[in-house]
Amino acid sequence: MITVLAGGVGAARYLRGLLAAVDPSTVTAIVNIGDDTVLHGLAISPDLDTVTYTLAGAIDPVRGWGLVDETWRAMGALARYEPVRPEGSRAGATWFGLGDQDLATHLYRTARLAEGATLTQVTAEIVGAWGLGLRLLPVTDAAVRTLVDTVDHGTLGFQEYFVGHHHSIPVTGVRFAGAEHARPGPDVLAALDDAEAIVIAPSNPLVSIGPLRAIPGIDAALQARRDRVVAVSPIVAGAALKGPADRMLVELGHEPSVVGVARLYAPVCGTLVIDEADAGLADAVAAEGMRCIVTPTVMSSPELARRLAETTLEAVR
Amino acid sequence: MITVLAGGVGAARYLRGLLAAVDPSTVTAIVNIGDDTVLHGLAISPDLDTVTYTLAGAIDPVRGWGLVDETWRAMGALARYEPVRPEGSRAGATWFGLGDQDLATHLYRTARLAEGATLTQVTAEIVGAWGLGLRLLPVTDAAVRTLVDTVDHGTLGFQEYFVGHHHSIPVTGVRFAGAEHARPGPDVLAALDDAEAIVIAPSNPLVSIGPLRAIPGIDAALQARRDRVVAVSPIVAGAALKGPADRMLVELGHEPSVVGVARLYAPVCGTLVIDEADAGLADAVAAEGMRCIVTPTVMSSPELARRLAETTLEAVR
Repeated sequence: MITVLAGGVGAARYLRGLLAAVDPSTVTAIVNIGDDTVLHGLAISPDLDTVTYTLAGAIDPVRGWGLVDETWRAMGALARYEPVRPEGSRAGATWFGLGDQDLATHLYRTARLAEGATLTQVTAEIVGAWGLGLRLLPVTDAAVRTLVDTVDHGTLGFQEYFVGHHHSIPVTGVRFAGAEHARPGPDVLAALDDAEAIVIAPSNPLVSIGPLRAIPGIDAALQARRDRVVAVSPIVAGAALKGPADRMLVELGHEPSVVGVARLYAPVCGTLVIDEADAGLADAVAAEGMRCIVTPTVMSSPELARRLAETTLEAVR
Repeated sequence: MITVLAGGVGAARYLRGLLAAVDPSTVTAIVNIGDDTVLHGLAISPDLDTVTYTLAGAIDPVRGWGLVDETWRAMGALARYEPVRPEGSRAGATWFGLGDQDLATHLYRTARLAEGATLTQVTAEIVGAWGLGLRLLPVTDAAVRTLVDTVDHGTLGFQEYFVGHHHSIPVTGVRFAGAEHARPGPDVLAALDDAEAIVIAPSNPLVSIGPLRAIPGIDAALQARRDRVVAVSPIVAGAALKGPADRMLVELGHEPSVVGVARLYAPVCGTLVIDEADAGLADAVAAEGMRCIVTPTVMSSPELARRLAETTLEAVR
């Protein structure tokens, strides 16, 4: 049993490498749902879908999100309604791209949730429809929502910050609304308690892994298994490979380096895997109380992703 | 001011003719919403959309519903999820065709309703987006739903009967759930009280016009203006031009002829327009207490639709 704490793109690539290295039926991914949103009445779970589409080999390789060979007819038609919506309405918004095929996933999820299914149940059905061998667990079935405090635009929902503003505006705080009263989804704590290895994927520590850790019980479960927990740094040579993690670390008072990542993870994680580019910081990581493993972490090919997965597993076996 | 009581396809064609004959800004259509449904979480209003798309010149001329030049990528992708949905779930259902561009209308409507807008408001916005000159009023903002009692499949929602079963199964009853407590939408009664002419479009009297008349206040408003009310028979030579009106009339104990239509409308409507094919029944219509006008009613061309509109207006002027 291997359990992976996952955000979106980076985690999906890590998981793809992991599934090439081990029997997929032994893998559970606990996935961030703080990015989830409702747009046009549709329940949208970006990280769950990015992981699913990536592992199904159906992700668009250029955009890095959504489905390959996608069309945009519905969005194109929606633009007709943007001019008539009243001031302040989010209806007809086309800033969040929803491809025609991708829409089907949201339609299915929305319909099932409306029927009373939990996100955990719907996710299992979607994973089954795509024929994936691993288990994907939303970290909670509660509606935990990541909110981003900004300098010039007030508090934004995560997608408004990330997509609407291209994550290019300064951030003064991140919160996870609803987290304090949320409970881990069914099987989530068991997946942490029973795992031979727990991997924190190379995702944004603040807004991808942060929402998971904000759910009461998760950090305690990780602490209890700290020697079995290994994280892959999403920061390489002081920069995020994707997304705003580096800027966000700075803006929220952290060091934008593997040392900053180590400080965030040290309480719950015994080992940090960092890239060779950061070899010079290995001692500083160790000084934070973590074992430090230096290896190529940039998953620029499936083979490198597989090797990274093997290295992380060996680190805690 | 001309007010038209409208269902879907037949009413849309009549309205197209009417708009060619008079200033569109003088026309109000009060439209059936008993066919409305929620599928995949989307608020779908088939009759409102058929009227809108037809008047915008965007209806698919072959199917008679949905948009021309449509694609079906979302529906195609949704089929992936049909095998994984649990028994009894309606999620992933593909029996109700939603084209990619058509989806945009449902996404916009759903988002606006979720924001608290009324169907009347959203409809005005959609009509504005399509640049139509008339006013479309849903007969009510309440959720009145047409239910169809069937012999072999119990009680069905209208779309399950009409689309799911291709309206090809015997019907034992029709009900309008929620109608008794519904109120006419804003401006609906005024549109009846103030109209110079009130036209009951050639729509199914039972399931298109029936839901309008089931709303308390509508029949009384029509009765008060009975001399100004003119209906166009949707039955020609004993058959419906489209849909199940003829079979449904028989199944529910009515005569499938212009005389059967006259009996249904006589209490609220002073004049019935019938096709030349039914000229022999003009006296029988008159015997039901209605003026009877015989004219070509089959709108096989825009010109014939315009002439039919002019004839109906002259009948009550």
